[in-house]
Amino acid sequence: MTTDNLNSALSFKHLFSKECLSRGESPIKTTMKYFLDPEFHFLGAGMPPLELFAFQNFSFKSLDLRKYTFNEIQDLILNKNDKFEDYINGDIIEDELDSDILIERALQYGNSRGHPSLLKFLKTHINNTFKPIYKDWDILVNNGSTYGLESLLRIFCNPQDTILLEDLCYSSTIEAIEAQRINTVPIKMDSEGLVVEDLEYKLKNWETLYGDLQKPKLMYLIPNGHNPKGVTLCDGRKLKIYQLLREYDIILIEDDPYFWLQMPQYKKPSLKDNQFIDENKPENDINSNQDFLNKLSHSFLSIDTDGRVIRLESFSKYFGPGTRLGYLVGSKEILDNVWNYHEVSLQASSGISQLMVNGLLNRWGQNGYLNWFKRLRVVYTQKRNFCLNSLYKHIQQFNINEYVQVEEAPKAGMFFMIYLNINKHPDYNQKLTELGKEKVVAYFENLFFEKFIQAKLLLAKGSWFTVNDPCHSVIDISKCMLRGTYAAVTPEKMDNGLKIFAEIVNQEFN
Amino acid sequence: MTTDNLNSALSFKHLFSKECLSRGESPIKTTMKYFLDPEFHFLGAGMPPLELFAFQNFSFKSLDLRKYTFNEIQDLILNKNDKFEDYINGDIIEDELDSDILIERALQYGNSRGHPSLLKFLKTHINNTFKPIYKDWDILVNNGSTYGLESLLRIFCNPQDTILLEDLCYSSTIEAIEAQRINTVPIKMDSEGLVVEDLEYKLKNWETLYGDLQKPKLMYLIPNGHNPKGVTLCDGRKLKIYQLLREYDIILIEDDPYFWLQMPQYKKPSLKDNQFIDENKPENDINSNQDFLNKLSHSFLSIDTDGRVIRLESFSKYFGPGTRLGYLVGSKEILDNVWNYHEVSLQASSGISQLMVNGLLNRWGQNGYLNWFKRLRVVYTQKRNFCLNSLYKHIQQFNINEYVQVEEAPKAGMFFMIYLNINKHPDYNQKLTELGKEKVVAYFENLFFEKFIQAKLLLAKGSWFTVNDPCHSVIDISKCMLRGTYAAVTPEKMDNGLKIFAEIVNQEFN
Repeated sequence: MTTDNLNSALSFKHLFSKECLSRGESPIKTTMKYFLDPEFHFLGAGMPPLELFAFQNFSFKSLDLRKYTFNEIQDLILNKNDKFEDYINGDIIEDELDSDILIERALQYGNSRGHPSLLKFLKTHINNTFKPIYKDWDILVNNGSTYGLESLLRIFCNPQDTILLEDLCYSSTIEAIEAQRINTVPIKMDSEGLVVEDLEYKLKNWETLYGDLQKPKLMYLIPNGHNPKGVTLCDGRKLKIYQLLREYDIILIEDDPYFWLQMPQYKKPSLKDNQFIDENKPENDINSNQDFLNKLSHSFLSIDTDGRVIRLESFSKYFGPGTRLGYLVGSKEILDNVWNYHEVSLQASSGISQLMVNGLLNRWGQNGYLNWFKRLRVVYTQKRNFCLNSLYKHIQQFNINEYVQVEEAPKAGMFFMIYLNINKHPDYNQKLTELGKEKVVAYFENLFFEKFIQAKLLLAKGSWFTVNDPCHSVIDISKCMLRGTYAAVTPEKMDNGLKIFAEIVNQEFN
Repeated sequence: MTTDNLNSALSFKHLFSKECLSRGESPIKTTMKYFLDPEFHFLGAGMPPLELFAFQNFSFKSLDLRKYTFNEIQDLILNKNDKFEDYINGDIIEDELDSDILIERALQYGNSRGHPSLLKFLKTHINNTFKPIYKDWDILVNNGSTYGLESLLRIFCNPQDTILLEDLCYSSTIEAIEAQRINTVPIKMDSEGLVVEDLEYKLKNWETLYGDLQKPKLMYLIPNGHNPKGVTLCDGRKLKIYQLLREYDIILIEDDPYFWLQMPQYKKPSLKDNQFIDENKPENDINSNQDFLNKLSHSFLSIDTDGRVIRLESFSKYFGPGTRLGYLVGSKEILDNVWNYHEVSLQASSGISQLMVNGLLNRWGQNGYLNWFKRLRVVYTQKRNFCLNSLYKHIQQFNINEYVQVEEAPKAGMFFMIYLNINKHPDYNQKLTELGKEKVVAYFENLFFEKFIQAKLLLAKGSWFTVNDPCHSVIDISKCMLRGTYAAVTPEKMDNGLKIFAEIVNQEFN
């Protein structure tokens, strides 16, 4: 990557929190440079001796998809039941691979930014995928994106600061923000993600709309396969959003755990002639890695000249949440300050997790890693297609079309959203009179949630994800929302679960 | 463990921070109970599918000390160069061991309190060692004690709250506290740890001494092998300290990472007749696990009837810091609130680390685990003895006895402390006049630090660890402090490093 002609990121120190500004670099950290000098008498830091580490070596076994093309991967999944037969047995012992993290490094203090070999792999991966366009972008390994967000809130926000969110947002994100007593202002979304006009309107008319509320420092987005709404922010809106963020000097947190779970479009069945798409219809136009990359959304990283975008990357959805491994991509200045926070909280991510993930990545290489994502694409597409076909089938069979709206089919991620037109429920008017506008949605949401639970079906409540506007409540009282997922559900459970859903909706509305 | 006759812990909700009180339980977390019901149609939470996890299995290799007695372990270390030859090869595959964490659980969401099998092992370990005396004590796995402290500060402290610290304290702890704008008040220490009279005096005369400063909510202690001072709080002081904490309603954070690095006493050589102790002198009175346990300090857990003690445990010094694994021991109420904070920050500790550590612990069993600690005891004793013998030897050879004081020999941990009597330095009076009392210690500390660095010796500065009193500065301007460690230093480097130290002190003072 030649970065010679690129500009450096802007400084965003003026947006840092009091807590962040009062945090210095750890003096002990400044001495770690001497640790690598073999001539040094390093009596300064409390590192335990290597010979007392409890583990001598580690190994793992993983699938090996290196040799396949996209079409071969697709064929194996769709026609041979996802049965791959090549494995890598990774033994992390000295000299097996130069890029391996030595056990004695993995188990020691130090490298709290992430182990060099892992950082190198990930930097190449990010550059290949997104090509950031300023000079001093960097990577900081963390414990996953939940912690990533927490650390960014700590370095940017004082209590009573304001963050912009999409009007639906992952519930833990809302909880993290609210517990820090940071104000949230929701921006409308539609089926193509954040509505630019609403963002612009709110920023332009901030004083009128929000009075004394602090102007926003941060905006947080889930661009692909939004949790909970399932929609994907279309590329065409990104430049305009970025320009608004520049104009109003706002930092963007791009939380994108589902980037590599992007899928081809799902064609909604025509209910008249009962035509469902073939769940297992292959994609026929991916003949190279470039073809594959061309199918994917852009990241804000690719248009960020200022260094005001911080991208949250996570291995949770790609390798497993229990790796507790993710990383931030952003400007060195911002990441240095997050690192200072790591020093007094996380310290570092598990060296064992890093050793395993790094061992696997370097055995696969960049190509093998892309092939892993190709597998995810095909498997998730199959799951989504099955789920939506099943959903539409049951809606049709139970004849509940007028009571149910299904959000635009997800083009990424794990989630789909269903709206119930509660205003068509026979008890709606009575309950509206009884409970008032504030409580009528919650009443019906709860009614359905409990009926589903009794029938052993769990769908998440929309209210868990709803971002309330502190000044201008705009709740649509005609519907309630339910979030579903097709990620870890067997076809049988999926189909049966959605049948239960349709049955109960039918009972309630008819 | 029968806990039937024990009382439950007190509630400490009145001490919780605003942030903690505004944090609820995650609604999604409340649905996880349905995940374990095989009849459920779990379309509610975004768990990735198991078949897409990147790892099929894991294994590790570790020493196996199960068959040895203490005397045999000691003999192998002192006379056979620490060469153990029995190994465990742990393969974490289905059905190898009931107590193993299945890969599909280790890599999935859930179990954010720690995996049940690991919690069970650790609870037995804590009960065997400390026998907590209230009913509802519990364990919460975290990412290590740095994060443990951070999480406790978040749930107890608002900015401007006050925490009591020993007058020297691990630098990252001070940084974590100060960045949250929490006030610190130092309590004096001597060679037997915290000085009870100073604690009592300050608590009794708080208004007079500290005026409007918030009364302390927390006290933080490192009881064994204090970092940086190297001393151990004697058991005889603990009950009185605990009574004072009860009287003034203060929570105690007992940070005890060096508990299992306790050692027999070191006998300071008589400089007159040049008699150094034999570095490798064996201990001859440990013939059972009970003998071993009897050698060790008590924990505040063992006298805590209220549930106001939170013990920070860590695998960093026992298995390796890169495990990033530790745990809190404390009352369920407090740990539940820390857990709520985990949900929006750490989420969970690495499942891979937990799988490995749990796999090793359950193969070793409680006895094998104790045997591991016996090895640590012997190795650390040998290291400490060598270090202190070398230090006293060089002090004698360079004839710098009047310029150097060595703190009471550590009975635990990794650290030793040296004081330089800077008031005997030829430039002292001139510099005192020039720089004043505030800066003269820093001047000499820096002078020596830089001279050492030039000679390729790193010792940590005492000022990094100094807790300043906000109202009553009591700096001793006659000396400066240096912290050394013998943990990860080879005998050759140790001896040569201390020779450099003595040489430079000699040059400077003579």
